[in-house]
This record gives sequence, structure tokens and C-alpha cells, in this order.
Amino acid sequence: MNTTIDRQTAEGILFTDQYQLTMAQLYFHMGLHERTVQFDHFFRSYPDYGSHQAGFCINAGLASLLGWMQTVRFREEDIAHLRGQKGRNGRLFHDDFLNWLQKHGSFASLTLNAMPEGRVVHPNVPLTVVQGPLAMAQILETPLLNHLNYPTLIATKAARIDQAGQGQTVLEFGMRRGPERAVNAGARAALIGGADFTSNTGLSHVLGLPPQGTHAHSMVQLFMALGDGELGAFRAYADLYPDDCLLLVDTINTLESGIPNAIKVFEELRRKGHNPVGIRLDSGDLAHLAVRSAKMLNKAGFPDTRIVLSNQLDEITILQILSQIREECVYQSMEADEVIGRLIYGVGTSLITSAGDAALDGVYKLVAVQKDGRWQPAIKISENPAKTPNPGHKQVWRVYDSRGNATADLLSRSDEDPRQMDPLQLQHPLEVGTNRLLTADQISEIEPLLHPVWQEGELASESPDLEEIRAQRKKDLARLDVGVRRLLNPHIYHVSLTSALWQLKQDLIASFKEEKTT
Amino acid sequence: MNTTIDRQTAEGILFTDQYQLTMAQLYFHMGLHERTVQFDHFFRSYPDYGSHQAGFCINAGLASLLGWMQTVRFREEDIAHLRGQKGRNGRLFHDDFLNWLQKHGSFASLTLNAMPEGRVVHPNVPLTVVQGPLAMAQILETPLLNHLNYPTLIATKAARIDQAGQGQTVLEFGMRRGPERAVNAGARAALIGGADFTSNTGLSHVLGLPPQGTHAHSMVQLFMALGDGELGAFRAYADLYPDDCLLLVDTINTLESGIPNAIKVFEELRRKGHNPVGIRLDSGDLAHLAVRSAKMLNKAGFPDTRIVLSNQLDEITILQILSQIREECVYQSMEADEVIGRLIYGVGTSLITSAGDAALDGVYKLVAVQKDGRWQPAIKISENPAKTPNPGHKQVWRVYDSRGNATADLLSRSDEDPRQMDPLQLQHPLEVGTNRLLTADQISEIEPLLHPVWQEGELASESPDLEEIRAQRKKDLARLDVGVRRLLNPHIYHVSLTSALWQLKQDLIASFKEEKTT
Repeated sequence: MNTTIDRQTAEGILFTDQYQLTMAQLYFHMGLHERTVQFDHFFRSYPDYGSHQAGFCINAGLASLLGWMQTVRFREEDIAHLRGQKGRNGRLFHDDFLNWLQKHGSFASLTLNAMPEGRVVHPNVPLTVVQGPLAMAQILETPLLNHLNYPTLIATKAARIDQAGQGQTVLEFGMRRGPERAVNAGARAALIGGADFTSNTGLSHVLGLPPQGTHAHSMVQLFMALGDGELGAFRAYADLYPDDCLLLVDTINTLESGIPNAIKVFEELRRKGHNPVGIRLDSGDLAHLAVRSAKMLNKAGFPDTRIVLSNQLDEITILQILSQIREECVYQSMEADEVIGRLIYGVGTSLITSAGDAALDGVYKLVAVQKDGRWQPAIKISENPAKTPNPGHKQVWRVYDSRGNATADLLSRSDEDPRQMDPLQLQHPLEVGTNRLLTADQISEIEPLLHPVWQEGELASESPDLEEIRAQRKKDLARLDVGVRRLLNPHIYHVSLTSALWQLKQDLIASFKEEKTT
Repeated sequence: MNTTIDRQTAEGILFTDQYQLTMAQLYFHMGLHERTVQFDHFFRSYPDYGSHQAGFCINAGLASLLGWMQTVRFREEDIAHLRGQKGRNGRLFHDDFLNWLQKHGSFASLTLNAMPEGRVVHPNVPLTVVQGPLAMAQILETPLLNHLNYPTLIATKAARIDQAGQGQTVLEFGMRRGPERAVNAGARAALIGGADFTSNTGLSHVLGLPPQGTHAHSMVQLFMALGDGELGAFRAYADLYPDDCLLLVDTINTLESGIPNAIKVFEELRRKGHNPVGIRLDSGDLAHLAVRSAKMLNKAGFPDTRIVLSNQLDEITILQILSQIREECVYQSMEADEVIGRLIYGVGTSLITSAGDAALDGVYKLVAVQKDGRWQPAIKISENPAKTPNPGHKQVWRVYDSRGNATADLLSRSDEDPRQMDPLQLQHPLEVGTNRLLTADQISEIEPLLHPVWQEGELASESPDLEEIRAQRKKDLARLDVGVRRLLNPHIYHVSLTSALWQLKQDLIASFKEEKTT
């Protein structure tokens, strides 16, 4: 099996749903394939993890989408694959269309405006706006959603875990149980959303971060099988990594064996002039063990050693652990803040799979078509009004209140500038007559959120690096109301329309219904 | 950003957890790195989707793991990355170890025995057995688990969906919301486990399958925006694909607009000598709409057209839809079997993410170490007895009862042959004295399950193709008790130990406890 060739086909421009190609051929056949259109990408609802729900998302995945768009094209082999496809009666794709694809089937004809990675984002707000010839915009639907849905889901989960951990270091440990090669996209998204480091070595190098890790139970077990026991394992590890010594203490029994052995080795390290880093707890009652371990380490004179917790952590488990630590500390006469302040969270499966809600419902909807050089808004009527997309060529704004907090995202027609409106009317997207009025003194800033990212086959601007993306995330989260950030039953953030956009949508719905009945 | 270089690093031999490399260096430092060891890979529990649970899994992912192992090696760049890693005080990896890695750090030194893809598999049964030098076996842990956990999870979900659909065609549609590039691994696993086709074009070509698809709402919506309406859209589609005409009928209103328009176009097709394929329903009450659509299509003389259902399907939704169709058919005077027999299921997000349980808990445990040329069993004692792995060099057998049904998987010491035992004693893995005795006449076959797959850097045998893998899955499922295959609260399949293996485990646990207390 020649894996290289396989992956070039499987991850190249045919990394799309079949119907995108059959529809593109239809548009070609109708002479519509080069009609300029606009698709909006947005998600419909925050992740709902069952017992808890997100009140915001963190945008991620754009760099990887644009990287993919830069490298793929219809190769000879791809065209040959399509030429070989049979329908029930002969070839599915015809030569005229395939010739066009090979010559013009490039994403260079598209323009993308998008929300930068790391931004706090909300449902029904366009995150990516694609304009260009219909056929290529259609073919992009699947890979665009594929590259953006999963990273945004994971960045969101990471932000929640970071929040539960109250700013203590979070390590991404999900590689072994995460979704195959997507663990790289997932780890990058986690690092955008709230994880500080990952154990993923290759990805860390690509991103310029030091990969993190401790050691496994198997190491201790091996020394035991060879007759050297846990203490022998710890000593060997400390000998090789005297300044990076973090010991996994639960292979035999945490309090009776692991911690006493770790303390012995830490004392030996100290005598040689090294500072031990800490311990890792990976099983049992983590809250109880963290407090007891901290007490033992303090007593032995190691109050600065870190305590890494791992084993099926997620945001709610961490919330619960911290609450239990506060209770346990009372009985153990310990300072809870001191214990909590030395914790590090190693989060694996729950983060990389977004446990509880494993998919973001991002969609890609046709919202406008150019006719005689002018944008015609397009609309898909749904029996569920919340699923009817906001039509036409638009801009997205974030409105900050007088405290500087984000109070609403506002969708406007592209020919409107809410910065010129006083008072600013924020229309509820579904309920007639439900709106808020904000006067100029109630508003500190109105920020446009969509920026050019792709033009003529190239990045429209330099992609921000990981640190810039993280700084954006921190800035956005700091400007979000505490109630919206809450891990359970968050307050609903407002996403509103301008009156003019609302009116446009109502007019389109009305004319659509009229058309249907005549 | 040069994506090609990035991916070579991120998906090459450094696609592993950092601690595998720091442990490997420790073993090198101790002179243990070339010690021959055995790691067993197995999962601990079936997926539990909350309201429903799996009673079996379908093994998948092996070909992709072996393909990865064939292509990766420590390149100059990888070694340079490791050389550049800093600990708290200087370099983390030393030149002697890096030189060894570059010269000997190859998976060619390992031997893998494994369960073939497509086999029905159960918890705590080794699916992959890795033998070879400690350092490289350790580094393989993360990529092995990564390549096997997710595909086995998805193949299992696909088998359940196929079972719920009672053998009707299942289409994998999950690319847009699935986990980024892993949707290729996921789609392949779905095709192994129970999906018949996928919409994923590139992957279909790689696997030699015709990709499947219909058209999107956006196509109808575009024709509406251009003034041609749903009927115009359907006519254009039928004109281009007269023999492959499958129409999405729910853009406006399924029963009032979509089906009547589809019937018009189908009649036009028939007059031109073509057979329309069918319709797709993607919203609303799918069971009700399927029955009503079938009735309308029958009345118009199209009883052979197919009805594709999509929209958030999973095994339980399909179960519920079929039950509702049986009820609705009574009121509509329709034959339920006729309606159900024309259904096709398009399953997206729930399949590719294994909705309800997004990770399989596969682990990789050290079970034996060679000492003076002889295998020494190794054991990790867990406070939870179920988590103590079965030690030593073993073989795995499947025992078939007199009806030819699989009745138990049996783990034995490698020097035992259960085919020679009469009666055969199946010891419960945890409960003392709980065992079953099977006499020779109660057994139709005892099949060894592990086979060589990797030797000296090459595949030990030709990898089976997709059709062979699917045939294996069908054969295994047919030999599984109905109660075990059940979608809700399945019967527990027996995984047993031979008396000798049970005794070995007890002896090891006892000697371990003795050692600890002395």
C-alpha cells in the first residue's frame, strides 16, 4: 500500500462530499458555475454537554483551512478519478466540466472574510463569509466546515476547562484516545482555547512550544519486574532528569508508597542542589489525595512542588475537585488556596473529544447571489424560524457597553454603519417588537468583526501566531460578562439584527410565501 | 506557512507523547532500551452511549497503523527538534541517546501480532501484541492507541446503525462535522463496520468505492433566488442526471411541494425512458413523511423509488423511526415492510463522532519482560481488580458452541492449547471459583485470534482488502448471540481465562503483595 499517494487523494481537493461535485457540474451545465454568490458559515447553537452548556465559543481552525486551500488543486489524478466515476448508465462527469475544473477549478477565485482565530463567537453570527464563483464556493463547503467545526468545538472546551481550573496550568494529554490524525488539529485548538501545553511532541515542535510530560505507570512497573521497585524507578528518573523531576506516585499506593518514595528521592535531589518539580496523581480520589499529598510534601519541606492531576478530568470534575479540596482542607488544617495554587491539570479524552457534545453544528448557507452586478439576497425558509438564515451581504459588529464589556453581536446590512446610529436599536432575531435601545453614552465601542483573510489564492494578511491568537482569546473572555462565561446554565448573550436587516428578512419571507401561494 | 514541512513533523515519528521519549532515554541510560518486552493493547469496556450500550466492538484501524509505521523514521529534522528541547536546566535529550535513536530508532525491530480488522472484539482481550526492544515499543504506545482507538469506536457505531437499519443501505455522511482529517479514518472504519458507501469523494476513490450523494437545499434555493423555483431545480437535476435522479424534497414543504414536484419530474423522466432513483427527506417527522411520501409515490406509479432518510440519525433514532413507520402504516393502509424495504439511511454526525461516547478506552500495558532469554510476566496491581491486566505472553482463542455461535473468548498462557483440553474450563477473570466447564461435544470450534501482522519492518502478510474485512465482520456478527448484539442492555459476552493463566495472575498478585509488605 503506497500511503503517500493514498493521502494525496484522500486529503486533496477531493476531500469533499460527492454532491458538491455533482452540483458543481449542474451549475456548469446551466451556465451558472461562475455566477458570483455568497455563502455564510456560522453555527446554530453552543455545545450542550448534557448536564452543562457553553455560553460562548472560541473560534479556531482558520489557519488550517487556509493552509489546505493553498496546497490543493485538481491534479491529473483527481480528474482521472472523476472521469472514472460511473452512474447507473455511463459516466457521471462529462469532459466539458472536467476540462473546466482542471483549468479553472481553483480556490484562487474566492474571497474569504472571517472572524480571526481566538475570538469569542456566538450562534447565527457569520464566522466565515465566502464570495466568488458558485461552483468553487460550493465545492469548498465540506472542507471549510470540516476544518472549522472540530477546532472551534475543542477550543471552546479548552476555554471552559481553563476557566474551571482558575488559571492554573492546563496540559493537553488527549492524543491516545482522540480522533486519529485530527488530534493535531485538536491539540492546536486546545492551545488556542485554554491549554498551556500539550504532550504531543511533533505538534509542539511545529508550534514552537515545549512539549510536556511526566512518566507512565509502565516505567515503575518495569523497574518492579526487574526487582528495583518504585523507589528504584524514581531514583533512576531523578538521576537522569534532576531538574525536571516530576514523579507519578500512584502505581502502587499513593499515600503509603508513592509519596514517601518521592519524598526520599526529592531529599536526595535537594542534597545535590536540585529543585524537584513535583508529583502526578492519576487515580483514586484526586481531591483527597491532592490535599494529603500536599500536606506530606509540606511536612517534608517541599511546599513549592507542583501536583499534577490527571484521569478523566473535564470542567465539571475540576469544579468538583476544587470544591472538595476546600472542604478537605478544613479537616486537614491546610490552606485551600495554597493547595489549589500548586495544581496542574492534565486533561486528555474529555478535551480532545469535547466529551458530552462531540460536534459543533456549523453550517454553510447561500445568502446572496449577484444578478446584473448587484447582490440579491437569497433565503432558505425553514419550518423552524430559528433555522432561517439571515439573508444578504452583511457586516458583523460587537457592541461594548459603558464598562467595556461585550453586550451584543449585531448583524447589519453591509451598507449600514451602526457606529453612526444613535440610539442604536438591537432587534431580537426572531421576536417581533422585542428590541433594546442603546444610546451613545451606553456604548464604549462598536467593533467590526469580519476581516479579509483570503484573496486571489493567497492569505489576505499575515496569519497571527499562537501567542497573538491566545492574547485575543484572553482579551475577549475578559470582556465577557461573568454570567455568560458560567459553566452551568450560562446567561444568553444577545445576537441582534439592525432594523434594516430585520426588515429585509421579513420582506423576503413575505415575498417567498406570496410566491408559493400564487 | 509551509504546510508540507509542518505535517511531516506533526504526523511523523514525533506523533507521540513527550513522555514516551523521555522514558525511552531513561531506558537507554539504564541499558534497558534493547531489553525485549511485551505490551498488550486492549480496551477495558464497550462504548456506553448513556441510554444504550454496545455488547461488542468491531476491530478497525490496523492497516492505517501499519501504513504509518512503514513510512515514519527519525529524520535529521526530528533529531534536531529533540536536540533543541530544553529542560529547566539545559538540554533534555543527550547526544548518546539521540545518536542511538537516529541509528536504531526504527519500528523494524518490533513484532506485532494482532486481531484482523473487521473482527468482533471484546474488553480485556489483547487486540494487538507488541514485542521487541523496550525503547521503541514504548515510543509506539501513543501512535498505536491513536490509530486504533478511534476507528474501532466508529466501526462499532456503524455496526449498530447497520443493525438498527435491518440491513438496508447505510450511507456515511459525516465529513462536515466530524473530526477534521480523521474523518477519512472514520469513514473507512464506518465502511468496515456497517456503512455501505460514503459521501467522502477522495476516500471513496482510495478505497475503490463509488462515492454517494444527492444534492443540497442550497441548489433548490439558488434556483428559487433566480426565479426558477423548486420544480426548475428538480428538472435541471433530472436533465443532467436522468439515470441517477435522487431529489431532496424538503426545502419548501415536503408533502405540499417537494413530493408533487418530484413526481412531475419523475413522470417526465419516465416518458423519456429513464428510471428515477428516489427522494431524500432531511427534516421534519421522518417516519411520518416516509410513509406519506411512499404512499404518494406509489399512487403516482413509482413504487420502486428509494427513500433516503437523513438528519441526525443514530441507531436509536432509526429503531424509533421503524417502530413508528409500523404504526403509521396501519392508519395509512400501507405495507410497513414495503416502506421499510425502500429506505436508505444517510448517517452523519452521530456515526463519525460516535455520539454518546466519543472515545474508546484502549490501553497499552506492559505484560512481560525477557530476562536471560525467558519471558517474565509483569503485572501492574490496580486498586480496582478489573484494571489489573492479564500478565505474560498469551494466546487468545474464540470458543464456538455446538450451534456454531461464539460463546466465549479465552485467554491462555502461550504454552497452552485449549483445543487439547476436555473438558475445557473457562475461569471468570475476577471471581474466584466462578467458571464454566465445556465438554468436547459442546464445542464446535476453538479458533486462535491473534495473527502475525508486522515483522522486520514489513507487513507479515498481505493486508486484507475492504471486502474481505467486511466479509469477516458479517461472519463474526452472524455467529454472535442475538442478545449480545442487542442495541440496549446487551447480554454480557464471556471473556475467560484458562486455569493456568488465572493461577499465574493470582501468584503474581500474591508475590507482589508479599514483596510490598516485606
